Amino acid sequence: MQDEIVDFLPCLTPDRWYEVALENLDLLLIDHANCEKKAAATAMNLMYRHVENTELLMTMSYLAREELLHFQQVVTVLKDRGITYRRLSPSRYAGGLRQHIDNSDSNGLIDTLIIGAYVEARSCERFATLAPLLDPKLSKFYGNLVKSESRHFEEYLSLARINARGDIAQRIEFFGAVEKDLVLEQDSDFRFHSGLPSESGPAHLA
Amino acid sequence: MQDEIVDFLPCLTPDRWYEVALENLDLLLIDHANCEKKAAATAMNLMYRHVENTELLMTMSYLAREELLHFQQVVTVLKDRGITYRRLSPSRYAGGLRQHIDNSDSNGLIDTLIIGAYVEARSCERFATLAPLLDPKLSKFYGNLVKSESRHFEEYLSLARINARGDIAQRIEFFGAVEKDLVLEQDSDFRFHSGLPSESGPAHLA
Repeated sequence: MQDEIVDFLPCLTPDRWYEVALENLDLLLIDHANCEKKAAATAMNLMYRHVENTELLMTMSYLAREELLHFQQVVTVLKDRGITYRRLSPSRYAGGLRQHIDNSDSNGLIDTLIIGAYVEARSCERFATLAPLLDPKLSKFYGNLVKSESRHFEEYLSLARINARGDIAQRIEFFGAVEKDLVLEQDSDFRFHSGLPSESGPAHLA
Repeated sequence: MQDEIVDFLPCLTPDRWYEVALENLDLLLIDHANCEKKAAATAMNLMYRHVENTELLMTMSYLAREELLHFQQVVTVLKDRGITYRRLSPSRYAGGLRQHIDNSDSNGLIDTLIIGAYVEARSCERFATLAPLLDPKLSKFYGNLVKSESRHFEEYLSLARINARGDIAQRIEFFGAVEKDLVLEQDSDFRFHSGLPSESGPAHLA
């Protein structure tokens, strides 16, 4: 995994999350498909909100296309493995970050971009750590995703810095603290971005 | 233009629309960018609504990626020509078709797909007719779009037939009649999918 990702993230994902992920690979893959779809939708939302920002439009459109390509790749994996793609309740993660968006600043653009950077960086870390633990086919797929998610992380962070009126270090730190809590606090439902799996039994399989 | 497009559409676009389009190329290009973005969003909406339908998911994701690529191409054209991309009120067209969606049938899927076929076929007709009237660079771009929009038309129509419980000829005919009215009735605002431009002066420039 790239040093920049490790440096940026406020903490590593607890080992317990990976153990539960490997025990619930079907659930992980289904939620992974949802995450790719949501990532594309988030990028498109920014395209609707900021029509005047050509660089943002071009980067977000490109990013949405990549997320959609990954979505198709995950759906193919689901199909090949006979896993039925179905709706899942989202984890607390994205909502837990987004509730802190300050809409008074450029219509929430900077915070949304910082959150985008965290989501991509965390995804990158989990793909990179999972890859060597998986069967060769899935391992290769997740290994390839590490590269693009890492690029997306950099693009979000760069756009946040370019579009901000001042220094955003404090805002990055603030969202880092929120993200750390979401990753280390217990979550009853296991998801791609969920926190520490609760020990209370099969609730994470819901 | 392909015979299938001409056969499918209930009428040709009136010559007057093309005259006004050439007089308002900036407006046409801005609305074209919006249309590509909206086409991607429509495809993504279907991906959210029908997670159980793998073929639909894969086709819609592929289609959204193509529309986003076209969006980037139009935004580049706008930038090269010094045209500021801005918000525009939508034409009556899509809303005029969508208000007739019967949501009791597969959650509106079949009607949405038929409307998708009409939107793509009408776009294809207008791109094909505009292409030879434009400067070489734009002419080539619009000429290339004819091919993909024609493919999208076929994909929408094919998905509508595959997913329908019975024959959809009557439903296609119904939406054809609605589409014909939207194309031949007067529209005060000029847009990529607007009807007959009104003769009342500069309102179409709004």
